[in-house]
Amino acid sequence: MNFGTIFVSEALGTGILVLLGAGVVANVLLAKSKGFEGGWLLINFGWGLGVFAGVYAAYKTGGHLNPAVTIGNLFAGVEEYAPGIPVNLTNTLAYLSGELVGAFLGACLAYLAYKRHFDAETDEEKKLGVFATVPAIRSYTWNFVTEVIATFVLVFVIVAFGRTPSGLGPLAAALLVVGIGASLGGPTGYAINPARDLGPRIAYALLPTQHSAAVLPGTVSANLTVGVAGKHERPEKPVRHRKNPDWSYAWVPVLGPLLGGALAGLAAQLYL
Amino acid sequence: MNFGTIFVSEALGTGILVLLGAGVVANVLLAKSKGFEGGWLLINFGWGLGVFAGVYAAYKTGGHLNPAVTIGNLFAGVEEYAPGIPVNLTNTLAYLSGELVGAFLGACLAYLAYKRHFDAETDEEKKLGVFATVPAIRSYTWNFVTEVIATFVLVFVIVAFGRTPSGLGPLAAALLVVGIGASLGGPTGYAINPARDLGPRIAYALLPTQHSAAVLPGTVSANLTVGVAGKHERPEKPVRHRKNPDWSYAWVPVLGPLLGGALAGLAAQLYL
Amino acid sequence: MNFGTIFVSEALGTGILVLLGAGVVANVLLAKSKGFEGGWLLINFGWGLGVFAGVYAAYKTGGHLNPAVTIGNLFAGVEEYAPGIPVNLTNTLAYLSGELVGAFLGACLAYLAYKRHFDAETDEEKKLGVFATVPAIRSYTWNFVTEVIATFVLVFVIVAFGRTPSGLGPLAAALLVVGIGASLGGPTGYAINPARDLGPRIAYALLPTQHSAAVLPGTVSANLTVGVAGKHERPEKPVRHRKNPDWSYAWVPVLGPLLGGALAGLAAQLYL
Amino acid sequence: MNFGTIFVSEALGTGILVLLGAGVVANVLLAKSKGFEGGWLLINFGWGLGVFAGVYAAYKTGGHLNPAVTIGNLFAGVEEYAPGIPVNLTNTLAYLSGELVGAFLGACLAYLAYKRHFDAETDEEKKLGVFATVPAIRSYTWNFVTEVIATFVLVFVIVAFGRTPSGLGPLAAALLVVGIGASLGGPTGYAINPARDLGPRIAYALLPTQHSAAVLPGTVSANLTVGVAGKHERPEKPVRHRKNPDWSYAWVPVLGPLLGGALAGLAAQLYL
Repeated sequence: MNFGTIFVSEALGTGILVLLGAGVVANVLLAKSKGFEGGWLLINFGWGLGVFAGVYAAYKTGGHLNPAVTIGNLFAGVEEYAPGIPVNLTNTLAYLSGELVGAFLGACLAYLAYKRHFDAETDEEKKLGVFATVPAIRSYTWNFVTEVIATFVLVFVIVAFGRTPSGLGPLAAALLVVGIGASLGGPTGYAINPARDLGPRIAYALLPTQHSAAVLPGTVSANLTVGVAGKHERPEKPVRHRKNPDWSYAWVPVLGPLLGGALAGLAAQLYL
Repeated sequence: MNFGTIFVSEALGTGILVLLGAGVVANVLLAKSKGFEGGWLLINFGWGLGVFAGVYAAYKTGGHLNPAVTIGNLFAGVEEYAPGIPVNLTNTLAYLSGELVGAFLGACLAYLAYKRHFDAETDEEKKLGVFATVPAIRSYTWNFVTEVIATFVLVFVIVAFGRTPSGLGPLAAALLVVGIGASLGGPTGYAINPARDLGPRIAYALLPTQHSAAVLPGTVSANLTVGVAGKHERPEKPVRHRKNPDWSYAWVPVLGPLLGGALAGLAAQLYL
Repeated sequence: MNFGTIFVSEALGTGILVLLGAGVVANVLLAKSKGFEGGWLLINFGWGLGVFAGVYAAYKTGGHLNPAVTIGNLFAGVEEYAPGIPVNLTNTLAYLSGELVGAFLGACLAYLAYKRHFDAETDEEKKLGVFATVPAIRSYTWNFVTEVIATFVLVFVIVAFGRTPSGLGPLAAALLVVGIGASLGGPTGYAINPARDLGPRIAYALLPTQHSAAVLPGTVSANLTVGVAGKHERPEKPVRHRKNPDWSYAWVPVLGPLLGGALAGLAAQLYL
Repeated sequence: MNFGTIFVSEALGTGILVLLGAGVVANVLLAKSKGFEGGWLLINFGWGLGVFAGVYAAYKTGGHLNPAVTIGNLFAGVEEYAPGIPVNLTNTLAYLSGELVGAFLGACLAYLAYKRHFDAETDEEKKLGVFATVPAIRSYTWNFVTEVIATFVLVFVIVAFGRTPSGLGPLAAALLVVGIGASLGGPTGYAINPARDLGPRIAYALLPTQHSAAVLPGTVSANLTVGVAGKHERPEKPVRHRKNPDWSYAWVPVLGPLLGGALAGLAAQLYL
């Protein structure tokens, strides 16, 4: 399989993953959406089933959709990324670039699908949260640790899938992502995928998300009292009206998952 | 397989799909129902498992249940809609008419199953919402865009199912619909199926849903403060006591899904 | 297979079904339980996965667990209820009696598992609701219609499972029950199974559920404001302190499912 | 297979199970987490999918992950714990010790993943609840009964899986645990696994969870009004600032599941 075919396949799959993943966050976070404040499990299912749909769309290349999975396979010492695709530098770059570009494009599509809800939303931090991960309690060290642990589980178990006749195919990956999100997504919002965070963060930086209309103070203060799950009261947290892609945090959800994936690959080579 | 067999099979399957789909919305929206305000994920599972049940019931014809899927298959250039059913004009019409009539009948059955809750509900907009989709923020352009994107994902991935040995059968379609609803259902309520919207909208126009009894103002004002997910406060939104099938919006959930399905068929022919 | 083996197998399976099903309702309804007010989808999953576990436990007899399924098979004209079990009067009685006795025993086990929560609960109507179905809006006619429609879908699709290579086995039945509960459970609480309602209702009538301790008025008034899904305010509904198995309603969840199952069997014979 | 391989395999699997299981409880219980008050079904899915991931990771040893399953297999009279692992004393000890050590290590990883949320949380009872089970209504007798019943269902149905061609593999166990949690987890928080409770309880006793900073009274009183599912009002329950692993309760979630598993093994030998 040539570079272009791999690139397009992974871009398609990752694009659908991020379209559905960013979509479910928009649904839960943005004003007036029908799934507004729909809860953490709804978010987990949206991302998990985004993986499900994306793996089918990228079936030709085994549906990595995630640089941490590609790197994890590399460190696990597999000979092929997928049937007919040997592990080499060109193919690795085809996977990584397809994943990143796909994630960027998927985020743009999610923006278009929720265009009027972005227009109606005044809090730029929520808009950033649709695209990229925002830690619950900011701590570069511990947020990094969380991403390493969560991605380790993801990649280690995905490599284990390949060792067992599971018969579930994409569903196994989907359920794994639902589970990791439910269990380990609390502190950082579970990037567990460098492309999933970086691509959409670039999209957020470039897209005209900022609300130009005058902000209605009444609406804003009404929104102030609800958090992601809709039950926290965070009266101390002001609405952020200025766009800020938070580049200073961006390395955490890129390097954490890469390290977690590499460690999982090594561990899988040793123990599985 | 003759016209009648295809028609009955698709009508049975689409009827069960819409019975369960309209049913779950009635359960969440209508006064005094046991699932009242049960959340967006409950709605997503109701529709997704409606697809699950409907595809089994229509197993003879491959369980399209959706003109966008039929049209998507046409544009994907497949030779058969299902084993033994060649793509031709007669069979296409059998699928489309069975889907539309089935959706109409399924909506009527959902009405009967929730008869007393329709009687107890005074807000006609909620009743319409049980049958047909109602956009969260009305915008013909952007609602259309959302329906095109969501249906593209649906049909593209369904065609991909056929290219891979998924082994999940109807479950794969069910989970895909749960995911699309969770992720892309926020703006328009995800018709992603012309028959699913048009058939029940016709049913709503014909059925005697209107509450003839005097409206108790106390009950009405109590309902005023809750939205679909039960947490929005929308005090600005008055209860609508007059039946209105909203025909001016009806083209969006018909043409949007058809365009999305056709584009997905073409894209599948190119990339899968 | 002899009468005893069929009886024990179906009693085991139906017992586990009702233990998990009554258990989840106890978890959501009874005071101080960890899943208190956990929502309708939680109830749907509890019952659905009760079917899942029960079908495995009764694998020798095909896991009917439900007289409506047994009768539906009879009307569908199958030759065997399960491999090696011909359709005849003795075997039919073995199924039906095993299902009823199993449901009774499962309800008793659920009572023991939640013993202290029954002790802590003062509202006898909630306790009845753990065992048997209680309609949301009482109407013999329309409650009966709802049960017929919901059971028709259940049995019709289960017969369709047998016609297709689904590969999901008990999971398919589980998901079908989750879906029917989500979508058609709102009006009556979805008995869709005569044994599931009658066995536990008898158990409720016999078990010492009544709270003998003096009722603390403060606790009672605190409970008054929450409904099944925990969000209705039903200040008009007084706490019922006297045990009442509501025998006048008991025929609806027995005859409705039997009729729905029989009609589904006939329809399956005609159309599948 | 030698002792070390069995030990590592079961420790890996049980470690991932408890990492995800303790993780989801941390997500729902601890201050400022993104899944805060996410509901009982979220907890059920976190534990169930922890089983799912853990069984894959421990595929070499059949993924027991639970002394009650190992003991249940022993009492069921199987000849091998997994293909190539005969039932004997050495292997039994390898399973039990791997399960216990894995559960301990998994709990430590969950602590690290949620480190800053443990720091931010002032209520030590919630922290204990992340690690070990805490009964809703304390009663040694009835809590024991609940654990016996719930573990009986778990082990009995798992043995039944082995008798039927389910094709679902780890997913079947995952769904069973979701169901048991939803249905029978209300009174005791469903240990149903001695290692899952004892290993993390030891971890809690050893880890520096206690909040050293001065407690802000405002924060504490805000937390006082919410329970596990976030809707109970328990104003009578004071925040516990001192660490207490509650050793007096620890025998219930160890002996209850062991008895339940042994009885299920015997019953399976008789009836399946």
